[in-house]
Formats: sequence, C-alpha cells, structure tokens
Amino acid sequence: MKKFSLVLFVLAAMVQLVTAQELVSPNSSLRLQFSLLSDGTPVYQLVYKNKEVVKPGKLGFYLKNDKKSLLNDFTVTDSRTTSFDETWKPVWGEVNNIRNHYNELAVTLTQKETNRQLIIRFRLFDDGLGFRYEFPQQKNLTYFVIKEERTQFAMTADHTAFWIPGDYDTQEYDFTRSRLSEIRGLQLKARTANLSQTSFSPTGVQTSLMIKTDEGLYINLHEAALINYSCMHLNYNEQDKVFESWLTPDANGDKGYMQAPCTSPWRTIIVSDDARDILSSKMTYNLNEPCKIENTSWIKPVKYVGVWWEMITGKSSWAYTNDYPAVQLGITDYKAARPSGNHGANTANVKKYIDFAAANGFDAVLVEGWNVGWEDWFGNSKDYVFDFVTPYPDFDVNGLAAYAKSKGIKIIMHHETSGSTRNYERHMDTAYKFMKEHGYDAVKSGYVGPILPRGENHYDQWIINHYQYAIEKAADYQIMLNAHEAVRPTGIARTWPNLIGNEAARGTEYQAFGGSKANHVTVLPFTRLLGGPMDYTPGIFEMDISKISPNNHSHVNSTICNQLALYVTMYSPLQMAADLPENYNRFPDAFQFIKEVAVDWDTSKYLEAEPGEYITVARKAKGTNKWFIGNVNGEEPRVSVVKLDFLDPGKNYVATIYADAKEAHYKTNPQAYTIRTQIVNSKTKLQQLSAPGGGFAISIVESAGK
Amino acid sequence: MKKFSLVLFVLAAMVQLVTAQELVSPNSSLRLQFSLLSDGTPVYQLVYKNKEVVKPGKLGFYLKNDKKSLLNDFTVTDSRTTSFDETWKPVWGEVNNIRNHYNELAVTLTQKETNRQLIIRFRLFDDGLGFRYEFPQQKNLTYFVIKEERTQFAMTADHTAFWIPGDYDTQEYDFTRSRLSEIRGLQLKARTANLSQTSFSPTGVQTSLMIKTDEGLYINLHEAALINYSCMHLNYNEQDKVFESWLTPDANGDKGYMQAPCTSPWRTIIVSDDARDILSSKMTYNLNEPCKIENTSWIKPVKYVGVWWEMITGKSSWAYTNDYPAVQLGITDYKAARPSGNHGANTANVKKYIDFAAANGFDAVLVEGWNVGWEDWFGNSKDYVFDFVTPYPDFDVNGLAAYAKSKGIKIIMHHETSGSTRNYERHMDTAYKFMKEHGYDAVKSGYVGPILPRGENHYDQWIINHYQYAIEKAADYQIMLNAHEAVRPTGIARTWPNLIGNEAARGTEYQAFGGSKANHVTVLPFTRLLGGPMDYTPGIFEMDISKISPNNHSHVNSTICNQLALYVTMYSPLQMAADLPENYNRFPDAFQFIKEVAVDWDTSKYLEAEPGEYITVARKAKGTNKWFIGNVNGEEPRVSVVKLDFLDPGKNYVATIYADAKEAHYKTNPQAYTIRTQIVNSKTKLQQLSAPGGGFAISIVESAGK
Repeated sequence: MKKFSLVLFVLAAMVQLVTAQELVSPNSSLRLQFSLLSDGTPVYQLVYKNKEVVKPGKLGFYLKNDKKSLLNDFTVTDSRTTSFDETWKPVWGEVNNIRNHYNELAVTLTQKETNRQLIIRFRLFDDGLGFRYEFPQQKNLTYFVIKEERTQFAMTADHTAFWIPGDYDTQEYDFTRSRLSEIRGLQLKARTANLSQTSFSPTGVQTSLMIKTDEGLYINLHEAALINYSCMHLNYNEQDKVFESWLTPDANGDKGYMQAPCTSPWRTIIVSDDARDILSSKMTYNLNEPCKIENTSWIKPVKYVGVWWEMITGKSSWAYTNDYPAVQLGITDYKAARPSGNHGANTANVKKYIDFAAANGFDAVLVEGWNVGWEDWFGNSKDYVFDFVTPYPDFDVNGLAAYAKSKGIKIIMHHETSGSTRNYERHMDTAYKFMKEHGYDAVKSGYVGPILPRGENHYDQWIINHYQYAIEKAADYQIMLNAHEAVRPTGIARTWPNLIGNEAARGTEYQAFGGSKANHVTVLPFTRLLGGPMDYTPGIFEMDISKISPNNHSHVNSTICNQLALYVTMYSPLQMAADLPENYNRFPDAFQFIKEVAVDWDTSKYLEAEPGEYITVARKAKGTNKWFIGNVNGEEPRVSVVKLDFLDPGKNYVATIYADAKEAHYKTNPQAYTIRTQIVNSKTKLQQLSAPGGGFAISIVESAGK
Repeated sequence: MKKFSLVLFVLAAMVQLVTAQELVSPNSSLRLQFSLLSDGTPVYQLVYKNKEVVKPGKLGFYLKNDKKSLLNDFTVTDSRTTSFDETWKPVWGEVNNIRNHYNELAVTLTQKETNRQLIIRFRLFDDGLGFRYEFPQQKNLTYFVIKEERTQFAMTADHTAFWIPGDYDTQEYDFTRSRLSEIRGLQLKARTANLSQTSFSPTGVQTSLMIKTDEGLYINLHEAALINYSCMHLNYNEQDKVFESWLTPDANGDKGYMQAPCTSPWRTIIVSDDARDILSSKMTYNLNEPCKIENTSWIKPVKYVGVWWEMITGKSSWAYTNDYPAVQLGITDYKAARPSGNHGANTANVKKYIDFAAANGFDAVLVEGWNVGWEDWFGNSKDYVFDFVTPYPDFDVNGLAAYAKSKGIKIIMHHETSGSTRNYERHMDTAYKFMKEHGYDAVKSGYVGPILPRGENHYDQWIINHYQYAIEKAADYQIMLNAHEAVRPTGIARTWPNLIGNEAARGTEYQAFGGSKANHVTVLPFTRLLGGPMDYTPGIFEMDISKISPNNHSHVNSTICNQLALYVTMYSPLQMAADLPENYNRFPDAFQFIKEVAVDWDTSKYLEAEPGEYITVARKAKGTNKWFIGNVNGEEPRVSVVKLDFLDPGKNYVATIYADAKEAHYKTNPQAYTIRTQIVNSKTKLQQLSAPGGGFAISIVESAGK
C-alpha cells in the first residue's frame, strides 16, 4: 500500500508539474506562475525579486447565453515558450530606440465539456508582465458575446493606490490617493461633475492604476493594444482584496462581440521597487503591433499656441452669435445674424496668434470655434451638430490658410463631434479632404457630451471601434490626430504613430473650471501617461483666471516654474503654450524656456520620482546635445538633488535654471520665479528647492568655450 | 335672471364656435371638425357623406422628462384656412399626372401653463384627410424628446380590418382579416417566424391599415412623409375602440429626438364608399414635398431578371465556399478556398441570365451573392460583414460589365447590409462609386437580421435617418435604389424618385419559404402599396418548389395567370421576372405577356376591387395606346365583368387574354391556363372566370385594320 500511494503521489506531482507552468523575465527578477485549480480554472501569479506582486488570480470569461462560459473545466493541451529580443525606433518619443525583450509562454487550454480552446499568452519583460487571451480558429467557438471578462489582480495587502472612479464616459477626475479599502468611502467625493459620466460601482476604478505597497513596491495595472474590444475598468472586492476586470457595456449591456480567431487586449502589470522604472517603462508600446504606416515622414511633433484658452476661461466664446439659441445646419442663416462681438475664432484674432507663433518659433496655431454650429453644440443630444467644413462668416478659411502659409505656420484643425459619432463618420472623408485642401495636417477632435448612437458609452467596443476608424482614416490622408474625450491610449501609437495625442484625463482646462490638485501632475505620468502621450496643454502664466475673465474665479494650482517643467515631465510630441500671448509677453524671460524646449527626444532619464509627490526627468533633444530637465512638485516644499552625470564627461555646459523663488507657492505666490545660469558638467550636483505645487526647469547646452 | 342666463348661453355658444373649427373637402363629401375639450385637449373628427369615419380622437404628445407634456391645457391662438390646387407630373407612376387639390386648416394651439405652441395642419382632399403636427420656432420649446405620440383614430364600431402584427423590425407577415376585437386573439398565430422581429403589444398593428365597416365604408390609416421621425404603428384599445399611435423606440426606449422648428409626418385617413378609390388615391404622394432632384433623366423604370430565385429556393447558394464557416474580410483567403460548386453568382451563370435578358427584351439582371462575405452573413451580429466591392473569385466584375454592356443589359447591384448600418455607411461612397465605375445604375439593398448599432430597431428614428441618408446619397450619384427590409414607404418617392422600390412586406420569396395566403396579393395593394411601389418580384411559373430544389417542399399559392396579372395589379416601376429562365422557356406563350407588359403608365383605372377578394385594373402604357389589364383573385372562384369603356371609342383593338383554365386552382392545378385573342372595342364587356388564387392578364393593342 505504501508503495502504491507513493506511486500515486509521484504521478500526481508529475501531473501538477505538467499543469503548472513557470516563466521568468530575461533578468530573472520577475517570475510568473500559471496553473489550473482543481476545477480547471486558470490562475496566474507574479513574483518580483521573491516578493509576491499579485497572489493567484483567476482568468477567464463569462459568456452571454452560455452558462458554461469560459471559466473552468480546462486542461492544458499545449504549452510553448519562446524568447524575443529586438530594438525598434519610434517615429517620436521619449527615446529614439526601444528594446523589446521578453520571454513568452503560450498556454493552450481546452475545455473538456465543450472542446473549446483558449490560449493565454504571457510575456514577461524585465519591467513587467503582459498577458492576453486568444481565441484560435476552431470548430466549437466562433461567434460569442462577452458578458464579462474575469481577469483578477489579487492584491497581497491593502495597498495605497492613486485612482479615479470607474466610469464609462469620462476620465476627467482628480486623482485620489488612498488605501484600497477606502475607495468605497471616497468614491462619491471623487466623482466631480462632468458633461458625460456614468459610474458603475462604488469600488470601481480606471486604469492605468498606480499602486504602491507598504514595502515600497510599485505596481501599475493597465492594458495594451485596446483594439476592437471594450475598455477595461477594475472593480475592487474588498473582502478578497481582488481587483477584477469590468468591461464597458454597450447600449444593451453586452461587453463584447467577438469572432474567432481574435484576441483580447494585453492586461499589463508593470512592477519595480524603483518608481522611475514605472515612468520609463516601454512595455505598453512593446506589446502593440509594429508601425503599420509605411511612410511616416509626414508625422512631426508640434509645438503650438491656440485660440482656445480665451474660450475655456470664458473671455470669449466658441459661438459666433447670440441671435440663435438653436441652429439647423444648412438652414440657419449665419450671414443674417449679428455677431456677438465675443467670437474667439475671428480672422483678425487668428492672425494675431499666427504672428505670435511665427515670432516665437512655434509650429502651429489651434483654432477652436471656427465652424458653424457652436450656438447649441452640447447638452441637446444633437445628431447633425457640425459639418466640419463650413466656417463662420468671420473666419476666412482661404485667407488664413494663405496667411499662415506665408508665415511658415500651420493651423491645427478642430473637429468637435459633440459625441455624435455617426455624424462625424458621415462627414469624415469630406472633413479630412477639406483639411488637406486648406493646408491643415493635424486635427484635434473632441467627444464632449453623451455619445450618439444614444445608449452607447464613450469606452464601449462600438465606440472604440469608431476612434480606431478615425485614426486609420486619418493615416490614409496623412493627417495627425489628437483625440480628446476618447478612450485613454494603450500604446496604439506604436502601430499608428499619427495618433500624436489624446486627452483622456483631467487636463489644464480644469484649472479654469475650479482648479486641479496641486500634485495632479505628479500623478498623471504614473497613471494616464502609461499608454501614450497626453495633450495636457500646459504653460499657464496667469493663475488668477478672473484677470482674464472677470466672472471666473478659478485659480491655477501651479507655479510658473511648475508650468515650465511640464514641457519636460509631461512627455508629449504635441505641446501647447496654452496661455494668451499677452501673458507670455508679460514674462518673456520665463517664456524663453517654452520657446526653447524640445518636443522630441533621443534619450530620457528619470532622475527621481514618487507618485503624488515629485518627478524629475532629464531628456536630450533629438539630434542635438541639448538637455532639458523638469521637476514638478506636490504639496510639500522639497529640495531636489540633481546629479548631471548623464552629461558627456569632460565637457562644459551652460545650464539655465528656471526655479521657484523661495517664497513661491501655487496658491499665494505662483508667479515668483528666479532664472540663473550656471556652468555645469557631468560631475555637477545641483540642489534645487521646489515650492508647493512648484518645480523647476533647466535647459542645458554645450558651452561655447571649454 | 332668465335674460342673464340667455346671455351666458349665447356667450358660451360663441366661445364654442370660436374654438371648434370646420373644414370641408373640395367636393364637400368630407368634413373635418377640430375642437378642444374642456381641459384643452385637442380633438378631431371626420365625417364622410354625413357618416362618421372616426369619432372624436385626441391629439398630442407625451414628452420625456416633462410631466406637462403636450396633451392638454391648450387654447386656439390662431387659425388659418387656405386652398391649394395644382397638377404635377411624377417621374414614373400609375398615372402621368397627379392633381393635388385640398382645403387646409392650420390651427395654432398655445399651452397656457408653459406658453408653448403647437400647430396642427389639416389637409382635406376629396379622398381623405392628412394632418400633421408642427413645432414652430419658439422660445419655450426647442429640444424635446417624444416619449409617445398621442394620435387617436377612434373607430365607430368593431370594424373588419386587414392587418399584420405591430413589429419594430419586420413587415413580412401574411395579412389577417378579422374584426378589430379579434386582433388580440389572433396576434400570436399571425406572428410567424422572421430573422428579425420585435413585437410590442398583443393589439398592435402596422400601417397602412385597411378597414372596412359593415356599412361598406373603406378606411385606410397610414402616414406620409416619414422623414427624421419614428415609424408609427397603431395599438388598439378594445374597450374604447380606439387606435392610438405607437412609435418605434430607439435603443433606450425613446421615440423621437426633436428640434423645433420641425414637423411630424402626416397622419392619413383615406376614405371612400368605393374600394377602388383607396387603390387609386394619390394623397400619400400629394402630402410629400415636390421632387428635389433637378435632373431626373437618369431615373428609368426597369424590367429585370436575376440570379436570385435559385438561391431563395435553395437550388444554389449566395456563398461561394463551404470551407469557411466564418470569414474575416480582408484576411480570409478566398482564392485558396474550394468553391462549393453551388455558388449562384458565377460568371458563366450570370452570362446566361444576361443572354436571356437580352433575348427577351429585359433591361437588367440582378445578381445577388457576387461579393465576398456570404459564408457567415446573418445571425452573427457581424459588424464588418460586407465591403460591397470585392467580388468572389468566380465573379468577373470587369468581364461581366463589358459583356452586359455589349448586350445592352444593365446589371443591378446588390448591397446586402445584414442590418449593419454603420458598416454600410462607412462603405457607401466607395460602393456607389464602384457601381458607377462598372456601369451599374441601380442597387437593391437589404437589411436582413437585427440592426447594428445593436439595440436600434429597423423602424426607429435613428435607422429611418439611415435609410434616408442612403436614398439621398444615391441621388447624388445618380443611382436608383430598391431598399428591402427597410421601413415601408410613405410617399417619399415624390421627393426622391430615385427610390424606385422597397420590399417592406411579405414578398414572393415567402412562396418558397412555405407559401403565402392565396389572397395575399388582393390585400397588398390596399395596405402596403399605399405609400409606394413594392418590388414584389412576381412571375413564378413553377409552383412546386421541390422541382427546383428537391428538399424544399414549398408551394407557390398562385396560378400562372395570377402571376401574370401581378405585373399590372402590383404597380411598380421595377418589375422582376423572378423565375428561372428554364421555367419561362417551358411556357413561352404565357411568358409573352411578361415580355410585353409595360412598367410605366399614362393612366390607370381600377375597374373593380374588394380587399382580400379581387382586384381588376386597367393601365395604359406610357406614350402608347396599349392597355394592359390584370385581375388577381382570392380563395373563391369568381367571374369578373370587365367593361372596356376606357378604350378610344370607334377604334378596334386586339385583346390577348391570358386566363385560368376552367379547372385551374392555385393548389392543385396552378399551371392550367388558356390564351385567346379577341377583337374588342370600347363597347366590349368581357366576362372572365378567375380560379381560386388565380386571375387573368390582358394585353390590348390597336388593331392594324379597322
């Protein structure tokens, strides 16, 4: 009997060995373990430097009209490991080449009762884990509807997180820093008003989710390559301490229409004991398909100004006239209307911005409110709300196209859709053609307000398909796209580098809508920026908005130097100097940094970082030997020690340091700054104080002499 | 006191006189009365030759999020009457000119509590009443959402009606003839299976609704000019004997997003004591806007054959291969697939049809199944299901375009959308351009299966907007459109005469899906045809479908002569000889009628008609002195007496009479017919027997001699 049970034991162990799979990262720091529970439920677990990152978490799907679903009853019928190591060059970025190096495990699971197959592919990088579900072509599974995905991220303890409320229609919330157990209690307060918002759970949050454990481990949860699928939120189960995937439903509550062969997006866990590794991780891009655009020569980073802040603050309006509370395109006679006298996008004003841009080395001018329809553009669920081609009577399209061209300036097109996606698609070819015919090569699109078709959500599969359609059609027309109020990016710009920006978070405009938290910009790079750049539109010099628009008592919770630093800390190939020209003209010395700062980089080094508290990063401008450093600071004054050991040894450089004055404070004294120059070299260690909500910006150029 | 109450009485009477409004038709037969109830609810009533057609019925709207709604509390603040009398020429039709003659009453109602205005415009023709709601531009009402329209048609008794079940997604039901009180009990039985259907009430019915009173009054309820609004069904309240409007909801249950100034469609009541007047009424067209297409020379009636019936019967398939149960356009390699050998739309077969068309004087050949995607085209809620431009490997687009051109034949394009409307719109310009580039000038579109965006219904406002978009874009491309599974027409072809057909009812294909009622075609002209022509695709000679497709035991419930007559009784500018060429070749003498019958007319005279029993109509071919007569018969054998008093007096004509043989019967002996010729003149009275499910067809040409 003993011998028999020994044999059984060995056999069982062998079976278990066969079922449990392990994968390590190239440098062995990360270890993934995949296995099946006794009921055939797939689970995975991640360990970093021998510390659990996530406990065993379940994987699978609830299917609509399919009680069996894809949850359990699996066996492993195949298992393959491979390695991959390649370097690729992005068209634009924080760095000019990216190494894509991972070990991969692809496990094929077959469900016994149904004979259906599911492949789970794990890729383990030195900075984290990505995994996705694949549904291979097979007889017993072709069309299916996802009721809910069941992907768990099982927390090892009640960590600290930086989160925004889960929402099907907006990400424009301040971040809350709290224990996971506190999410429920803080959700209501976190859910500030928005023109289109739909909550789903008192413990729901969005990704990317930034987590820090008490042991000092940084964990970021997100997804990569969100294409033809529904956007993933996370819902926290306080009892089990488990985050579970919560997809965005369509108008009927369904969460995904699938046809095999197909894949889910990658679910990602970036992890390090060094916060800077989170910021510098390229894993999200690496999990996306290589660039699909053959000729990318027309894709160029842009530094721009715009007729925008004056409307955001309330100084002027997008609308042309007050005569018509409601309009019908093609019927309303705009020529007969009396201009309100307050329309921002008029020819003379745009020319001023073009002149300003040309005089200050900018590439482009964004103009919002140039086209008919703004009198009743939101809150009315309007189908045919804009036509994207008919200018207001006071916007001379052709004249301005010629004027801009003569000044070497591009005008950035604006396509506010008001969420009316079918209307936008109906006009898209015409609108893109109009752009090319009039010299526009970049467009900012917007999806403000509830989505049409009515019942769909901003982040459901149907509408994510629309955003992708806009990106790919723009590529056909060689148009760069900056999509606001769309889904947050998930690395898609590797495949479609004409997607040069998104908003998809609480941007600078909120500083004019009541203000954002002073440490907001110390969180965003840890959360929003993981999947792609943000058109944060920084560069505000006048913090008291009532000085621009007397009835608006909002305050910009940032010092001038914090605003300067954003050009470095908030990486984006698309950077706006958002304030009014007159405010820049008041501080020409500070403005000099914005004029000089690059928008494309060879190298980036995150020098120090702590979510919610500070970020300091140094970047080398593409094709030059110039460096720019930016620091943004949270609520507490702080001194940074900045080692310039990234400079070429043996060379002298001139550093121009734009820093908060000693008495600066984002609330009470935001415009107090100092500018000094200093000779530096690779051995230099700078010490620099940052005020609350402050920061510093440094430009470093090679010294002329030695 | 007496004097005082007398004064009061007179005053009250005067007030009542001011509120109650009357309108009579040009010939005074019809009298409309409009008034307000004591609570300010608008009501209307219609009288024909001193008999009540509808008792007082309420008018108004339930608005979403608006408890007050637009139901009551109105006063009449304006009232205008006008007359109109004009003749217009349709591009194609049963007649070559149409008189639009009505008296009109426009009542402006102001709601006291809200100060909102509603105009109800009544137009009284000699053949009926049309009325619509108008929402003028005004301060207190701009954007509003209709929860339900409250338009009542109050029946005077438990009439007989010919109805199909109310349904948000299909009209493909056999008609039921019953008392109104019996609708509830018969609804389930009437609701036969369909690929996309959504019932809403056990007493719901669709329009146009044909009613006959016991006193012999014929009443037809429908709507005209359904544009940018939700399709109206009717729901019957058995207790009150009132039909009330029931609009089609969108994905959220809302029934109409409106922006003033705007109007509803016209609600129509066509009434006569002569059934023929219902058939010949042009009121629905007259209520639509005049033609919006400047140059209509490219719009031409079409007689066609097609690669279609062989697939409908199951003899061949739309799909090309059985290798792939599911396909992904652009990825699936069709060239690598083995043809099933059963694909109908292959080059050789299409050439046969082109040859047949050319040899027999047809204009065009419809080809279905020519393009990739049919392997999994329905039942899968597929988004990207067709691209409308990529042919199967065995369909030589260019070769066939050249071949057809060389034979003077057009190929009719086919755009099955599978209900995936966004996909169709994304491809529409490309698809229409493809047509023009390859010589196609007409397209049959289809919306088989549940609509995408998912949650919308075939007849809701959002999707009706789509159908209209397709019509108007087709007009831009000078393309004629024949839309199947779309909303039933409401006279729109007056405004957009490129809409040469719709299906929107149970067509000939159902004869191969189990058969339709033998009297179906004696009902359709009283119901479906009120709003526009139907692509009924008649001309079936082989009634035993198993002879075409052995596993299909369906029987066509019609005699050959009934099929011939349909070319006259089922008016359409688009007429198909739907059967297989080999079946026509078996009966060349009967086929001769189909070859000769015209598709466009100068004059039409309905000689006799009774819904559900028989219709006999004579039409004069446009620009000729040829007449064609058709009779379709119901379940009982019947003798028609046909007076040819419409012929030119003093002339001799040769009549060729295609009639059921004495022993013919749609079930047991459908192919028994006789053909005889006879000299006739304007004094001739023909007597002709029609078999059950039978009929006769007559062509009349001027005699060569005198």
